Amino acid sequence: MRDVVIHPIDVLLKKRDGEELSTAEIEFVVGAVVRGNAREDSGETAGAVGETISDAQIGAFLMAVFERGLSLRELGDLTRAMRFSGETFDASVLETFTLDKHSTGGVGDKSSLLIAPVWAAAGMDGGSSVSVPMISGRSLGHTGGTLDKLETIPGFDSQLSLARMGEVLRECHAALVGQTPRLVPADRILYGMRDHTGTVESPFLICASIMSKKLAEDLRGLVLDVKVGSGAFMPTLERSKFLAELMVSTGESAGTKTVALLTAMDEPLGRFSGNWVEVWECVDIMQGRRHSMSADLIELSNALSGWGLFLAGRAESPEDGTALADEILRSGAAYAAWLRIVAAQGGDTSVFEDPAAFHKPKAMRVLRASRDGFLAGMDCKEIGWAVQRLGAGRARPGDPVSAHAGIESHAKIGDRVEAGQALFTLFSEDEALLEEPYRMLGGTVRIADHRPERQSLLREVVKAG
Amino acid sequence: MRDVVIHPIDVLLKKRDGEELSTAEIEFVVGAVVRGNAREDSGETAGAVGETISDAQIGAFLMAVFERGLSLRELGDLTRAMRFSGETFDASVLETFTLDKHSTGGVGDKSSLLIAPVWAAAGMDGGSSVSVPMISGRSLGHTGGTLDKLETIPGFDSQLSLARMGEVLRECHAALVGQTPRLVPADRILYGMRDHTGTVESPFLICASIMSKKLAEDLRGLVLDVKVGSGAFMPTLERSKFLAELMVSTGESAGTKTVALLTAMDEPLGRFSGNWVEVWECVDIMQGRRHSMSADLIELSNALSGWGLFLAGRAESPEDGTALADEILRSGAAYAAWLRIVAAQGGDTSVFEDPAAFHKPKAMRVLRASRDGFLAGMDCKEIGWAVQRLGAGRARPGDPVSAHAGIESHAKIGDRVEAGQALFTLFSEDEALLEEPYRMLGGTVRIADHRPERQSLLREVVKAG
Repeated sequence: MRDVVIHPIDVLLKKRDGEELSTAEIEFVVGAVVRGNAREDSGETAGAVGETISDAQIGAFLMAVFERGLSLRELGDLTRAMRFSGETFDASVLETFTLDKHSTGGVGDKSSLLIAPVWAAAGMDGGSSVSVPMISGRSLGHTGGTLDKLETIPGFDSQLSLARMGEVLRECHAALVGQTPRLVPADRILYGMRDHTGTVESPFLICASIMSKKLAEDLRGLVLDVKVGSGAFMPTLERSKFLAELMVSTGESAGTKTVALLTAMDEPLGRFSGNWVEVWECVDIMQGRRHSMSADLIELSNALSGWGLFLAGRAESPEDGTALADEILRSGAAYAAWLRIVAAQGGDTSVFEDPAAFHKPKAMRVLRASRDGFLAGMDCKEIGWAVQRLGAGRARPGDPVSAHAGIESHAKIGDRVEAGQALFTLFSEDEALLEEPYRMLGGTVRIADHRPERQSLLREVVKAG
Repeated sequence: MRDVVIHPIDVLLKKRDGEELSTAEIEFVVGAVVRGNAREDSGETAGAVGETISDAQIGAFLMAVFERGLSLRELGDLTRAMRFSGETFDASVLETFTLDKHSTGGVGDKSSLLIAPVWAAAGMDGGSSVSVPMISGRSLGHTGGTLDKLETIPGFDSQLSLARMGEVLRECHAALVGQTPRLVPADRILYGMRDHTGTVESPFLICASIMSKKLAEDLRGLVLDVKVGSGAFMPTLERSKFLAELMVSTGESAGTKTVALLTAMDEPLGRFSGNWVEVWECVDIMQGRRHSMSADLIELSNALSGWGLFLAGRAESPEDGTALADEILRSGAAYAAWLRIVAAQGGDTSVFEDPAAFHKPKAMRVLRASRDGFLAGMDCKEIGWAVQRLGAGRARPGDPVSAHAGIESHAKIGDRVEAGQALFTLFSEDEALLEEPYRMLGGTVRIADHRPERQSLLREVVKAG
């Protein structure tokens, strides 16, 4: 039997005209993208290894996929080809239920820092064992990144090899690490291309990017937090739900139990938004101190944790799982797991003894309510950008971030406020960086005469079948 | 006033979402494409000259235009930006009505070799003067190229500078030349990109490509021959007509009187298909010998010539123009103009004394009818490919072509044929090249029991308003 030769031009013509690509054609594209990049890195000339694909062809392919979309079968094939484009984690030696969560990105969303310890604690108390190979990202755009938060802990090392990650998982049942250079290289290359060809917002390409990285962790369960509202990447509930459905379908068809919660991102989640301040907030909760501003964070975290415990067979229902998660938080078991995980990754746990004292911004300013009324709303994306401009986020990949920049929220949407009352405290490590974010926050916060209708935090659950 | 900075990503996002681009945005893209290419040629590094556009972005842009189309305003802007991307011909010094024709490509279509001398002859006999700055292309794919035909004439030089073209025009009222390297460079670059990104078939991009080159000739009148049928690039009448409408609109909005004739391309046009054999056929006609197989060619040529004479004000109606064109052919005036043009471009006109004798194929074969009946049809594109495989066309740009390869048609669709009667004679300069085309022709010619309905050669006229 002769191998069928696939030409990039034929793949482009099919997708351009809305036809379905074959598995072999999708595997060819992903393979050629990675091969072309490897050749570029090594200085080899094009054409040295089999059939290649040019940058112009990749750009045209991404745009054709943007315009024409993918069938679920094509999406599954693309995700799988990307997942296996480099090294992958092999969880079989752990003999546990590997479980992870992923959020599409929000402001003040530090729930991973609570969920991982909760699941790890559940994984250590016997029964059907759970482990959490959590590979996270960095802040980009208006959203924060779990790695940036963790790295404010002195000595904390997020750059573990997959082998070392396996050791930490065996010891602690969770590891909080960054992507290795060889994990899902196709996504690294394609994401860079999407970013400058105007094809980032395709739900199909977003799904393949997220799911290829998560599935490379060899997961048996995955809980997705898909944000909706003014702080979400996806502008509408309809589009967020469509993305959630694509991700659940892709996860399930890869053999991973997958559920997506559509959750509100209309205001910063919890009390703090930034880097160290978010660790501080989580440590407070795990140590048993529940600030009133953290109520929404705890509700979200418990709901996501609960679904994971249900998927792992540790709870009879998601609701039972939620109750169990809250109990694990309250009992101190999550905090104990947290200390073990941080210590295993080289972090200095003494900073958790007085997390407020470790917070050392060099400059602060308070935004106050201009009048009496009710906090009615804000553009949450604008809040995220203000946090980024304070120094907590980065303008482009590779930029350094400030450990102690951020904001504290003093009121939630629907709260009664009085003129002069503090709404936000801004922190920065540079006085000069306060002015613009202060104006941004002041410009987007709305105070109204009447209390706005309360929106629920948990909007909808998307699951298989 | 500050210059508005245009970023490629913003242009991509707009076109991707089906929004209309501004004139400045379209000019930016074309400018950046040409600048980027110039930089590449000179070895400069990217970013040295203003804002650039990457290959991936050009690929994505072309695909977005393919999928979303262009408004007539955008198409006019794209055509104009391409037209002025390099040097252009300035016809103002000629003080004549500059007139040209363009065909979307066919098999055996040598009408340019008749039309240019007819118009030149009309341009020389006083009245409102006409000149024909005809910049033609070479054979590609299944279609022939006017330059390849002309260059079978010993000494004929098609590579004139625009300045030299102006001199020939002043002397002969027509010049038959190839594209200069600096004429419409944007099309050369974009065509190469379209070819390998699967975006060739966009009617908008085809229109901009054709019209930018034609309008760079500084035309006052343009007659377009848009082919329909099995030998045409566009598969359906509907799509051919849409392309014709785009081209007429684009020409008219640039101030050029433009008309398009939709004409049949269901079988090779005229008696011969190839290179020298097509010159031979035209010389026969201009010398007053009208072979029965040339009737369709003469009909087409006179119709296109007639429309041009009408646009130029040399005839009261297209029908009068057609009659005038036929008279110019019959009177010998066209042949006299032809001899002047060829001589002015260095060609040896002695070969026209006995054009049949100059035809020197090294190998021949005759395809005969397998049975009695009527010639019912053929895939005309397949005929074109057979001619190409005989050596008359090229597999890729830059390949040499054979002067004497080609075919002679001995019957037209609808003709009564008898078993054993010659249908095609194949000519090649290499015996080994006969076999495959012989099988291709034999495989595509259909003989039926009943006479097929006659189709008209001239299907429809598309004109402004």
